[in-house]
Amino acid sequence: MNSFTYCTPTRYVFGQGVESETGRLAKEYLENPKKILIVSGGNSARKSGLLERVIKSVTGEGIEVFEIDGIKPNPTDDRVYEGIALCRKHDIRAILGIGGGSVIDTAKAIALGVEYEGDFWDFYAGKQSPEKALPIGVVLTIPAAGSEGSGNSVITKLDGLHKISLRSDFALRPKFAVMNPELTYTLPPYQTACGIADMMAHIMERYFTPTENVEVTDGISEGLLRSIIAVAPRLFKDPTNYDARANIMWAGTMAHNGICGCGRVEDWVSHAMEHELSAVYGVAHGAGLAVVFPAWLTYMAETAPSRPARFARQVMGVPATFDDHGDALAGIERLKAFYYSIGLPVTLDGLGIDNPDIELLVKKLHENKGEIIGGYRKLDAAATEKIYRLMM
Amino acid sequence: MNSFTYCTPTRYVFGQGVESETGRLAKEYLENPKKILIVSGGNSARKSGLLERVIKSVTGEGIEVFEIDGIKPNPTDDRVYEGIALCRKHDIRAILGIGGGSVIDTAKAIALGVEYEGDFWDFYAGKQSPEKALPIGVVLTIPAAGSEGSGNSVITKLDGLHKISLRSDFALRPKFAVMNPELTYTLPPYQTACGIADMMAHIMERYFTPTENVEVTDGISEGLLRSIIAVAPRLFKDPTNYDARANIMWAGTMAHNGICGCGRVEDWVSHAMEHELSAVYGVAHGAGLAVVFPAWLTYMAETAPSRPARFARQVMGVPATFDDHGDALAGIERLKAFYYSIGLPVTLDGLGIDNPDIELLVKKLHENKGEIIGGYRKLDAAATEKIYRLMM
Repeated sequence: MNSFTYCTPTRYVFGQGVESETGRLAKEYLENPKKILIVSGGNSARKSGLLERVIKSVTGEGIEVFEIDGIKPNPTDDRVYEGIALCRKHDIRAILGIGGGSVIDTAKAIALGVEYEGDFWDFYAGKQSPEKALPIGVVLTIPAAGSEGSGNSVITKLDGLHKISLRSDFALRPKFAVMNPELTYTLPPYQTACGIADMMAHIMERYFTPTENVEVTDGISEGLLRSIIAVAPRLFKDPTNYDARANIMWAGTMAHNGICGCGRVEDWVSHAMEHELSAVYGVAHGAGLAVVFPAWLTYMAETAPSRPARFARQVMGVPATFDDHGDALAGIERLKAFYYSIGLPVTLDGLGIDNPDIELLVKKLHENKGEIIGGYRKLDAAATEKIYRLMM
Repeated sequence: MNSFTYCTPTRYVFGQGVESETGRLAKEYLENPKKILIVSGGNSARKSGLLERVIKSVTGEGIEVFEIDGIKPNPTDDRVYEGIALCRKHDIRAILGIGGGSVIDTAKAIALGVEYEGDFWDFYAGKQSPEKALPIGVVLTIPAAGSEGSGNSVITKLDGLHKISLRSDFALRPKFAVMNPELTYTLPPYQTACGIADMMAHIMERYFTPTENVEVTDGISEGLLRSIIAVAPRLFKDPTNYDARANIMWAGTMAHNGICGCGRVEDWVSHAMEHELSAVYGVAHGAGLAVVFPAWLTYMAETAPSRPARFARQVMGVPATFDDHGDALAGIERLKAFYYSIGLPVTLDGLGIDNPDIELLVKKLHENKGEIIGGYRKLDAAATEKIYRLMM
């Protein structure tokens, strides 16, 4: 077990109707702001009346509201610059994101950029380390990215399509997250499934580790993964099953607030490989992960089967034999069957990519992430090329 | 799944040698104090040199140190009054606890009392609700009570031997917890075992719930319990096994920082029943819990077997049958065998109580906690008397 520092100061306010508390929370936990920038996504929050309800709750506390909306999946740097300029122009000192990961990640990037004299991209490019940001609150509508409790933000630079993930364990964590599972009733099945694949990946990226003897973190991770797999079918059977939606929403937060990483080296190759798929082909992040992870696991079943075998036995319920490789493969089959059962693709052509430019993907991957990548095992371009080919 | 608010702002700094960072952490997270009150327990921290190392780290930051030491297990109100007086006399505005639960709980009570004009016992007596307290830091030396990450504090009033637990989800959580597993190498086996029983109880008090469909919180709780049971034998075989000590230390924090309670009603009858044993007979809290829990479970196996059966299957590895009652009993036998294997008693006479005054225990229990107690099932004095008798 490795040394670590862990702190999750986000206040989670979870349950039916909690969005009506947003104004009070903003006042209390975003340093009593006079003005707030509300960042939101497509039209659904507006059409459902959520945006209006939240704005009413915020203005009811005497806080003036400014808006930037229409943030798209795989959010881009242009909207971040726009938000930073708006905050500077009006001296806005607090940010509220209403939406899923793309909205919250954009809110974080704006919060960081306002407090920095240079180009906010310096943080994503690794030239600067985030130390301060405007305080952020969140009203979550899509359980997937876990951004409501994490210190992470992923932004794509339009120039060159570089999709880069930034992690700052302290500066970027939201001060509060308003989480009403009812707000997710109208999420379409495919988007729900993508969210589930994303949160599972957040746990698995941490679970596949070279660090030994991390039983407590393993136990938490395995318990979370099992609970997601157990609850998912109920949710697809009845999209307005409150308890199923609630469990999936809470799992998404736990998956990525760091608790599954305590005391160990993490992997994150699958996310990096998926980010290239998203950047080049514009696929949904969660669907991409459902394609990448089985391929990555298949490569590891050959070369480093111990953790894939444990995953198969403890999470996927494969009866243990003495054959790590065989158990690992059986686990991968069960994982693929699970993804398939919730409507996700498990191959590149299922994603709609018939003629993948694997050379380009590998080139961009190592350009962005370095020659050798991975925590569980170190992978070079020859290895990642093999993994991309296993997705076909 | 119920609504909830959850926030754990404690910064956990975990690993070898981290106590040398205490001064820096105190300066940064205890509001840059000029003076600090260090609360400690018996002689072991002094003899081992830990106290001196920590004091050096703190004074190295220009912070003046005051001390109150010799805090005993089942800590009492007299030492709290002493600490409050000392803080007021010297205008001390920050507290550092070095030790286990008794020390930290005392530190919390002092922190609360200094900021309150009346008698600090008002909070424990339920007359006042904690809202502010001096900031607290912790150097943990005994993994058991989980007080390093919780908002709880248990103090015994000498007059009448009332042992009362206070829970304040926000005011009492430490700002930071320094956690070096090496500091626990010298804990005697019996104390180590008591700590393990205590942390398991913290999870189980939350696990036994009437709330349905809390799979995520169940998954985390079951994973934690299984990991404790898996790691414990390694620790007793080799008390200086770093990884085993580290996992047990981290499990103790996770057991009681609230993550196992999110979204559900909790029980806490076993703790209440044990507190009376501790108050009247002065037994070690963890050992008392190892006696109470199997008795409580046996009563529940008869009257409400669904959760005890799930516990038996998911945590104790009992093969599932269609017979909840039978599976529950098999799980209880395995739990008792586990306690026994780590050197704990599972009956009152094993605790050294040959002629328990059960009438007195029941009377004091309901005097302190009310006529009807319990979250999993509601229990009156007739029921709790039966449970006390099942301990014989």
